[in-house]
Parts: sequence; C-alpha cells; structure tokens
Amino acid sequence: MSLIVQKFGGSSVANAERVMHVAQIVTDTYAKGNNVIVVVSAQGDTTDDLIAKAEEINPKASKREMDMLLSSGEQISIALLAMAIEKLGFPVKSLTGWQAGFQTDSTYSNSRIRRIQSERLEHELGKGNICIVAGFQGINRYDDITTLGRGGSDTSAVALAAALHADLCQIYTDVDGVYTADPRLVKNAVKLDEISYDEMLELATLGANVLHNRSVEMAKKYNVHMEVLSSMEDLPGTQIKEVVDVEKMLIRGVARDNDVARLSIIGVPDRPGVAFKVFSTLASKKINVDIILQSIGRENTKDISFTVCRSHKQAALDILENLKNTLGAKAIVCDDNVSKVSVVGAGMQSNPGVAAKMFEALGEANVNIQMISTSEIKISVLIHLNDSEKAINAIHDAFFN
Amino acid sequence: MSLIVQKFGGSSVANAERVMHVAQIVTDTYAKGNNVIVVVSAQGDTTDDLIAKAEEINPKASKREMDMLLSSGEQISIALLAMAIEKLGFPVKSLTGWQAGFQTDSTYSNSRIRRIQSERLEHELGKGNICIVAGFQGINRYDDITTLGRGGSDTSAVALAAALHADLCQIYTDVDGVYTADPRLVKNAVKLDEISYDEMLELATLGANVLHNRSVEMAKKYNVHMEVLSSMEDLPGTQIKEVVDVEKMLIRGVARDNDVARLSIIGVPDRPGVAFKVFSTLASKKINVDIILQSIGRENTKDISFTVCRSHKQAALDILENLKNTLGAKAIVCDDNVSKVSVVGAGMQSNPGVAAKMFEALGEANVNIQMISTSEIKISVLIHLNDSEKAINAIHDAFFN
Repeated sequence: MSLIVQKFGGSSVANAERVMHVAQIVTDTYAKGNNVIVVVSAQGDTTDDLIAKAEEINPKASKREMDMLLSSGEQISIALLAMAIEKLGFPVKSLTGWQAGFQTDSTYSNSRIRRIQSERLEHELGKGNICIVAGFQGINRYDDITTLGRGGSDTSAVALAAALHADLCQIYTDVDGVYTADPRLVKNAVKLDEISYDEMLELATLGANVLHNRSVEMAKKYNVHMEVLSSMEDLPGTQIKEVVDVEKMLIRGVARDNDVARLSIIGVPDRPGVAFKVFSTLASKKINVDIILQSIGRENTKDISFTVCRSHKQAALDILENLKNTLGAKAIVCDDNVSKVSVVGAGMQSNPGVAAKMFEALGEANVNIQMISTSEIKISVLIHLNDSEKAINAIHDAFFN
Repeated sequence: MSLIVQKFGGSSVANAERVMHVAQIVTDTYAKGNNVIVVVSAQGDTTDDLIAKAEEINPKASKREMDMLLSSGEQISIALLAMAIEKLGFPVKSLTGWQAGFQTDSTYSNSRIRRIQSERLEHELGKGNICIVAGFQGINRYDDITTLGRGGSDTSAVALAAALHADLCQIYTDVDGVYTADPRLVKNAVKLDEISYDEMLELATLGANVLHNRSVEMAKKYNVHMEVLSSMEDLPGTQIKEVVDVEKMLIRGVARDNDVARLSIIGVPDRPGVAFKVFSTLASKKINVDIILQSIGRENTKDISFTVCRSHKQAALDILENLKNTLGAKAIVCDDNVSKVSVVGAGMQSNPGVAAKMFEALGEANVNIQMISTSEIKISVLIHLNDSEKAINAIHDAFFN
C-alpha cells in the first residue's frame, strides 16, 4: 500500500462540478489501494473576495487578522470536497491546518512550516480515511492561525509528503506538466516526462509559472518524488525527482520572465566598496537583486547595473537616489522595458556549446543582449521587452528542432 | 473595572458599514474603562450561502463536515470586526471557538458546551485586548469543530459571561428590547425595563423571537445578568435577571406562536396505557409534544389531542397512522390552521383572576378556544389561525390598557 499526497489548486475546486471531478480523481486513487491525503486551496475567487471585504473595512488591517480571515477559504473547500467524497461513498475526514498538525513560525501572512505533528493524520489514515487537508495554513506557538504566503498550498503538500514519507506527491494544476517552454508562447513546446529538482528550481524561479520554488526546494531537501499533472485531463504529467537522465536532452526548457526592471548607476568613481554599499543597502531593505553587471566607464569611473522584480523597482530607485551623492555617481537610470530569457538544463554542465548556441540563435533573430548571467545549469540574458517572444521562439527552435 | 460580554447577530455585521458601527459600540464600551469580550455570528447571509454550496454537492453531507463548513462563517466575521476595531486604534484579538476554549460534546450541528478553558481569553484581557470570539462553535474531545445549533451565538455569549464572571452580558439584536407583545402585531405593545429569567424563558419558548431559551436557561443557571438591546439605536434595553418586581405588572407579555399543528386520535377504546403508548413512541422519535388534551368520547372511547411544531407534523402523523390499528382508534385528524397565544407573568401566581380575564377578552372578541394549557407563570390557548392577531390584541388591551 502506497501513500499518495494530491494537491488541487483553487481553480480545480472552483464550483460544485469541479469539486465532484476532484472527488472522482481522489477516490479512484484510493480505490486502487492507496492511502490518500489531499491538500486543497481556497475555491476560485474566494481569497480575492475576502481580501475585498477586508479592504473595504480596513486597508491597513494587521496580518494576524488577515490570516484569520483568509484561512477560512481553505476551510470551506476542504469541507465541500469531503462532502463530495462522502457522496461517492468513501470514508473521509477534512482537517484544517492546525488539525493536520501544521506548526509554523510566527510570521503572519508569510510563515514557514516548522514541523508537522502527524499523529492525527496517521490516526485517520490508519482507520482507512481519506484525509482532506487545508493548504496554505498552520498555527504558530501562540495557537494563532498563520498562512504560508505565495505557493503555500504546494508547500503544504510537499511538507506532508516529507513528514509522512509519502511515495508520491502529485500537484494537479491547469497545465498537464512542465514544458520545454510556455506552450502559449512557443508553438513547438514539448512536455517533459521528467525533470530534476535543480532544473525545476531554475525554471520555477525564472517564471515558468507551474510550481512555486519554495515547494521544489523542500521537495529537493527531503527527496520527495513529485509529479505535476492536469486536473482536467487524465494524462501522465511530469515527474520531478533527484536523478534524471541528463544525457537525454542538452537543455530542459526555455523560460521567460517579464517581471523584471533594470537599474543602473552611471559614472561612479572606481573606488573599492562601492558595490558593497549599494547591495548591502538593497539587502537591508529586503530587495532581491538578480543579474548584476559592472562595467568600466570613462575617466576612471564604472557603471553598475542590476535587475530587480518590478514591484521592488521604486524602492530600489529611492535607495539609489539617496546614495547618489555619497557615491559620487553621475546618474541613475532605470528601464523596465526589459525581459529575461533563460535556458535551463543539467546537461549543459558537460556541454560548453550551450551558451554559444543560445547567443547564435539570438544573433540570427537580431535580438540585442543587454546583460548575461550564468549558473551551472542555466544561462539567462536580459533583452528588450519587445524582443521577448521572438527570442524565446528562436532559442527553443535552436535546441529542440 | 467591569467585564462586559457583548453579542452581535448576523444582521448587525452584515456589511462593512454595520461592522464599523458595531466596532464603535464595542470601543465606546472599552473606552469607558471596561474589559470587553464580543461574540459575533456569521455575516448576514453567509450561513445560507454556505448551506447552498453544500446542498449542491451533497444534500446528505455528514454533520461533521457541515460544522467544518459553517464554522468558517464566524471566522470571517470575527476577523472583519477585529480589523474594524484596529482601524479605530484599539488593541484587539479575534479568536475562533477553539482558541477561546469552547469545549463541547460530540453531537455535531447541535452540540452542548461542556466547559470553557478561559486561559487564553484571560491572558488577552490581561494585556488590555478587546477579544472578538466566534459564536456558535467549539471543538469536541477529538479536536473536531462542532456547532451549537439554533440560538448558538447567544448561548456562546452567556457561557462566556458565566465562565469569566462577567458583570453584564449584552445581547444586541434588531429589536430594542423585550415587549409586552410583538410590536409588529400589537400597536400598543410596551417595552419592558426588566423581566425575570423564568418569564423570559416562557416568552422565548412561546415564540417571542428575541432570545433562544437555551441561552436564558444558562443565564438563569449561572445567574448571568443579561440585557437585550438594539444595535441600531442607542437606547436602554430590557434587563433580564433573577429578581424583578413582580408586583409592578400582573403579566409581563403576550406571545403568539404559529409554528404549531394539532393532531388528534379519535375514538380510542378507554383502556389504560393508551396515552403512554402514544407519547413514548413520539418521544423515542425525538418529537416534542406541547399541549395535551384528553377528552371522553362516545361509547367508552376517548379522544387524545396534542400539538407539535409544524416541522414534526408529518413524522407525528406517520407514527399515529402506524399505531392506529394497534390502539383501535377510529380516526387520525390533523389541523395546522391553529395558533397558540399565551400570557406570561410571574405576577399571576398570586392573582387567580388572570385566566378569567384572558378568557373574557377572547370571548368578547368572539375567539373560540380549542385547547388550554397552564403553568405557574403562563396560560396558553390554542385557537384558529385566522383569529390569532385579533386574539393577541384583545388580550393585550385587556391587561395593558
């Protein structure tokens, strides 16, 4: 008998019909002789509706009360899914985050799971019950309800799979797996049978929009075998696990991220400590910097450019304007008409030609490269926003056709 | 410093504007130097909306899952009210039923409060926080969420007031107190300044629609000083307490209950054990019987009539039809065109003229009395439904004008 954790997002349980469909998937898995734990998010627009109610009353409500409010959304969906499974005649129990033993730190609205006290879950599984667990939520040491922030329900599912040594953690979404590129952008995109944690992490971070990187990091840490698959179609998905056949494909996928802005400090005197000052100030304000480029300017000066996500653009600009005189910089420049395009693949570690092939494809497509960043398993380039779609198709054609 | 428990129903927190208004009432009370615990119900139609969602998926859902679903409604309203109080700049914490320490028995959908573990509440009050508690809910010994059934939030408030020895338990509703009769039916109805627990119990049971008798029973048991008042108008309400001046008024109020059906077993042979058989069978099916009348029929037979609430009519009829042959009854008759009208008042114990005065008023109004039932502080008559409004006005005029 295997233990399978299945996670369904908000769109998968948006209405009664969808809930019944999920109940069918869950009970089919159970009927094959598996123990099943299901993690669900709040229904479709529930979270947005609750946020709107809060905004109307107090736009500056405390995060503690926001967590109290929003966690009711998953409580509704677990009860409804349990009712649907009861209707199909299977034994089932719904459990809130605290009932399922999710203990978190005390950071409201963005808490981390500290441990899962799994006695209750094990007791229910032992009695043959399907367990429906509210994702995205837990309690802190004061017994107050917390929520896990973005990607929370995926993380809940992986954490349960890790704590209970599940054989498989299935993430059901509205796509049927991980593709070599976004199928909406690249016509020839191909679904991957499997991908390693590291490759998935690079793709998640780079905007592939399938899984939040937090859940993949946790899956990697605890070696949880994941599968991404569609709740709409009965098709095999993409396996995410430690060892995959890196020889099979040179690169695993092409990703694009438009949520990026480039900032530059122009004409800083070429003295030690300038970069430290800039990036330590940004870090102290919790602004994540992605690609960094430093170049020699004229007359013993240098230019420093870096990228941040667009929501941090203004805060980063303010910091640079404040530092401008201290640093002796000539100008601060900002551009958010940019896009980051990346290729990811563990295979490139032993194949030095990947970068050259990527740059060749971009050159032939007449796309100018503004910045370049590389890791062991990925190469990213910053280009003009208007070139983004052309670039991703050119690169995908070069590697996959 | 006093401790005041305030309870607000679903219509009092139905939208953002009402929630802000309740926050004002609560913080005014706090600003006068009181400790304040607030109990709230789910917003306006939330419970109905949730029930509709459940019905669509599974009309026969388990009560455990219904409780899981419905308890989310109060969780939403406590968070919103807490946010409103934060906006007014006061310290506040919302608490679900389990966080507030409500431990119940295991009867889902209609559970009884077993105890309140008040450490958390006392801790929050000690820190100067206003506490907003989800009414209607608790957890059983399996740590599963339960709901208290009808009148649950009133009962939650009284139970908190009892456990924490509150000085006052204020029940805010959409009426501004307890009246001598329903003001929508009787033009001259007068608001009572005070009423005893026993009188309030009779009025609650008899359909005065202000307080559920369960909460009044608990208030009587633990001697909780209650006040019923309006959340819309800033007026003194009606005090409910142990000792009230019984001399002041002969009767306290006139109530009407149309949720009643009369059933009769006609022509049962006059043998011992017949009544026992009928009413023990009804009791075993949890059908509450109100007024009972047994009369001598023709030819050594008797007729037995009794009333039940309309929702139990069909079940009671089925039982009687089943028993008909065993009992040797001639016919089973049912009539739900009936209404029960009652006068209530502790003063009538020492005033034998009350019944006569009531019957005289009905006679002059040409209202025929079908059945009569009396207790120490109340007299009820069953009449034709069409006479109901005429009867209640005639009786009210006789006693209060």
